[in-house]
Amino acid sequence: MTTSVANNALDTQPSDVAIAQAHTPEPITTIAERAGIPEEALIPYGHTKAKIDVPRLKELKGSPAQREGRLILVTAMSPTPAGEGKSTVLIGLADAMRQAGHRTMVTLREPSQGPVMGIKGGAAGGGYSQIVPMEDINLHFTGDLHAIAAATNTLAALVDNHIHQGNALDIDPRRISWRRCLDVNDRSLRNIITGLGGPAQGSPREAGFDITAASEIMAILCLATDLEDLKARISRIVIGQNYNLEPVTAGEIGAAGALTALLRDAINPNLVQTLGGTPALVHGGPFANIAHGCNSLIATRTALGLADVVLTEAGFGSDLGAEKFFDIKTRAGALDVAAAVVVATIRSLKFNGGVVRAELQKSNVEALQAGLVNLERHTSNIRKFGVEPIVALNLFSSDSDEEREAMRTWAHDHDVRMVETQVWAHGGKGAIELAEVVLEVAGIGGAMDEVASKKEVSQKTKAQGEHTIYDPSHGTVSTLRTIAREIYGASDVELSLQARKDLAYLKANGWDQLPVCVSKTQYSFSDDHTALGAPEGHTLHVRQLIPRTGAGFVVALTGDVMTLPGLPKAPAAQGIDVDVEGVISGLF
Amino acid sequence: MTTSVANNALDTQPSDVAIAQAHTPEPITTIAERAGIPEEALIPYGHTKAKIDVPRLKELKGSPAQREGRLILVTAMSPTPAGEGKSTVLIGLADAMRQAGHRTMVTLREPSQGPVMGIKGGAAGGGYSQIVPMEDINLHFTGDLHAIAAATNTLAALVDNHIHQGNALDIDPRRISWRRCLDVNDRSLRNIITGLGGPAQGSPREAGFDITAASEIMAILCLATDLEDLKARISRIVIGQNYNLEPVTAGEIGAAGALTALLRDAINPNLVQTLGGTPALVHGGPFANIAHGCNSLIATRTALGLADVVLTEAGFGSDLGAEKFFDIKTRAGALDVAAAVVVATIRSLKFNGGVVRAELQKSNVEALQAGLVNLERHTSNIRKFGVEPIVALNLFSSDSDEEREAMRTWAHDHDVRMVETQVWAHGGKGAIELAEVVLEVAGIGGAMDEVASKKEVSQKTKAQGEHTIYDPSHGTVSTLRTIAREIYGASDVELSLQARKDLAYLKANGWDQLPVCVSKTQYSFSDDHTALGAPEGHTLHVRQLIPRTGAGFVVALTGDVMTLPGLPKAPAAQGIDVDVEGVISGLF
Repeated sequence: MTTSVANNALDTQPSDVAIAQAHTPEPITTIAERAGIPEEALIPYGHTKAKIDVPRLKELKGSPAQREGRLILVTAMSPTPAGEGKSTVLIGLADAMRQAGHRTMVTLREPSQGPVMGIKGGAAGGGYSQIVPMEDINLHFTGDLHAIAAATNTLAALVDNHIHQGNALDIDPRRISWRRCLDVNDRSLRNIITGLGGPAQGSPREAGFDITAASEIMAILCLATDLEDLKARISRIVIGQNYNLEPVTAGEIGAAGALTALLRDAINPNLVQTLGGTPALVHGGPFANIAHGCNSLIATRTALGLADVVLTEAGFGSDLGAEKFFDIKTRAGALDVAAAVVVATIRSLKFNGGVVRAELQKSNVEALQAGLVNLERHTSNIRKFGVEPIVALNLFSSDSDEEREAMRTWAHDHDVRMVETQVWAHGGKGAIELAEVVLEVAGIGGAMDEVASKKEVSQKTKAQGEHTIYDPSHGTVSTLRTIAREIYGASDVELSLQARKDLAYLKANGWDQLPVCVSKTQYSFSDDHTALGAPEGHTLHVRQLIPRTGAGFVVALTGDVMTLPGLPKAPAAQGIDVDVEGVISGLF
Repeated sequence: MTTSVANNALDTQPSDVAIAQAHTPEPITTIAERAGIPEEALIPYGHTKAKIDVPRLKELKGSPAQREGRLILVTAMSPTPAGEGKSTVLIGLADAMRQAGHRTMVTLREPSQGPVMGIKGGAAGGGYSQIVPMEDINLHFTGDLHAIAAATNTLAALVDNHIHQGNALDIDPRRISWRRCLDVNDRSLRNIITGLGGPAQGSPREAGFDITAASEIMAILCLATDLEDLKARISRIVIGQNYNLEPVTAGEIGAAGALTALLRDAINPNLVQTLGGTPALVHGGPFANIAHGCNSLIATRTALGLADVVLTEAGFGSDLGAEKFFDIKTRAGALDVAAAVVVATIRSLKFNGGVVRAELQKSNVEALQAGLVNLERHTSNIRKFGVEPIVALNLFSSDSDEEREAMRTWAHDHDVRMVETQVWAHGGKGAIELAEVVLEVAGIGGAMDEVASKKEVSQKTKAQGEHTIYDPSHGTVSTLRTIAREIYGASDVELSLQARKDLAYLKANGWDQLPVCVSKTQYSFSDDHTALGAPEGHTLHVRQLIPRTGAGFVVALTGDVMTLPGLPKAPAAQGIDVDVEGVISGLF
């Protein structure tokens, strides 16, 4: 999940929304020109946002494969509840690279309105490392998440209507796995009963909503290669079972065409800009804890076809977004990855070393050192995917000199590249050194000779599609064991009674050889959010296995992770306002 | 509700979507220039849609009141289930007026995706009288309905979260009147139980969804004069009662700022064009049976400030959309109305004369004459609002010469202006005579001297705000009686036990002096959809009275009308498709 560094203690700096509003963005046509996107392939949404007509772009410029940039992943250590500034670092880093003369593009995920109204108030970077227009990006943007919800809920309506109108497909209402979705943090919709009120109002059944970002349609949109693939994937969606326990698909319901029509515009990536004027594609949903949590493959590929360096993010730590980025997204998209930035903060290291949230501002070298096991496992995990990590230490003004010195010592002793960044306060200027190190690791030379450099280093990296740690053909349990042992440090995996039943269903339909998308708390390598640091020898508890045949993976729900968040006691919504001129405040 | 004349028997004519796709629309900047909208006030959404920045437009051109066009309402007789082509006639009529040299604008309502996926397949006019891009307008458009749903559902989440987090306002969960909404025809969501699953998932309670167009936020968006008024109205929304039976408002929940921020873009009207190139503002929701069913006041006022003639519609017949247009919208907006077009079809007259749907294609003068009582009451109703009606007889190829002759005789005998139109097959050319008659009645001279003419006739029409048939200060029951007797031909109004309790609540809070928005079937002047023609002496059964303090009216639910439609046995969604090029089919 992208996060602004709102609790940075530099009290003199204006709020994120104030910084964004004080900035005059360049016209989106200028940004498109900078990115090499011809105007004929640009669909403006206002003057500072646009969708890219990807099929038209391919017609005009040839397919992306003909001109391939280098891809750098930005991930993070295990976060504190406030977030560590992963998007913020990514944006500052991109601006630094562009300022150094590299043709750079950013591919980020679209914020969800749920947390914007809940705990976060905004998710488009922070401080002087933001994407703009931040209010628009945080609220509705170009409507992609609403389109995904419309498609999801239209399918649900078609399923319930099918039963109401005679149930020709013999769907068992007790075994409908298709849930509705909304982009709202509303715990009351997790478990509901629908169809009450008598025969004219449908058949009562147990149902529920997920947050839109965790829906299968979001995963499909993020993994589809084009409109045809999108429709084929939608057609394969399993909505539940009939009374013979056989799967029923969206294709059989007759929904594939209508749902694809509802997503025709949403499949096109959105172009915006960073405060530093770097072109940014923001497309596809967040939530690497309860979804695969990457931006769309179409956006990443489009950027790789346009830029020399593409910075992309995956949500939360190496155990969540990065694992899924490698095992699901690079597998589906045959992507090569040149380097990975692991964002860390001194406060999160202390948090993982046992310091409570209220005490994080105080210098505490001992706790910091205790928490370093967490960062060590994240960097080690990244190497398991065949990619070299660079730690970006995202500085906060509360960080003490002693703590920073302890970090340098650790990096030196552990042979880990580490660079301090100050992107929140200084934008791209706060990431100049980080840019140099990342470019060097990724094998990208100076601005003038990057093409030559790319050729030279292309032998050093893994071949495309080799950034994975498991072979799904060994079965769901084997896959779960590999992820749990290699990435989470667990010793075993335990399936609940329900999960064992689910597994039999997967096997009966040949779905036990699909990749697995694990839903797990972001605060721990284990499924217990209180087990900070680098827990070992624990058991991963899988409570449910859900086939997502359209997305092409199986979702494993672990621990007590919820697929629809709730609002906190004091929701951010209560602080959001808009004045008579239409200027929005309270997003940060 | 707008309706395409899809069942017109001219088999040789391409489908609506094929006609729309074969047409090359003019750039939206050209349409804006034609409408007199400076580019600085235009926010493009692609190349053929835009939002108008109304505050900026006012800055640049002065407030609309300084240059006021003449407003013509398009309404209809009671419809058949297939619809009679009200929007289609309106669009053709506008194109005819523009072709005759008048500065013309159209203000229509935004289609709802629910019926697009259900019975209708599209709602942007029909044949050669359409607004384009019809696929976009029918699917998501500029996202207004999704923004309204987001605001509605965010408020619901804040209410349930307030209870979950300690319920400081002492809200009685049994008395929450705020319902969620979605733009999906999904009967299963009408009556639900939320919050199941234990203490971490909220408190169980009875709840439900309405269709977005019937939500209070939609009514507020359509009646608000600006962003400030919007926020003030949202703040006044009553979400339910506390344990002392006192109303609790959205303002007390702390939701007004966030909801207004969610609607900041949606409040701006959307500019598109007719096939004839007439500028069209399409803004605000449909459903005059279960909502007030008019396009937004902001759009109508904006058009009146730009054009000499503005054509606007109100859903269904004079008993539904038109009654609410006059009694709610012109009252709220101090609008003057120069003339009203009542769309009629021979098939609907036969339907109201007792012919079953399958037999409507056959010539039947006797049934036609029996059905004319329906049209007579509609024209008589329009006169009660102080406006002169002109009947537009929307021709279908199945209409016989004898039937058309019978219509001419009736019009002559009853001293009603009636003109035949063929807008579906011929666009603006099919409404040239209708345009002449309407312009004459509205007191608008030739293209060259319209300003002089306007001044001359301004004495003839009613003063602004006088197009109403009741004074709400006489109380809710008096208002209901006046509407029932004067417009529906009823002899009495009966309140259910629940409605009587509701009335006491309205009185206790001073809301019994608000205008009333009656939810009633569109097929009959009564609350029984089988009572066609012009029923008399019946009783209007009011089952519930709901205060909509933000909208500024009381909703009266009558008969068994549902605020969330269902899907039919064979939903239109099953016929909608999109090809690999992104071309959508199955909308008609």
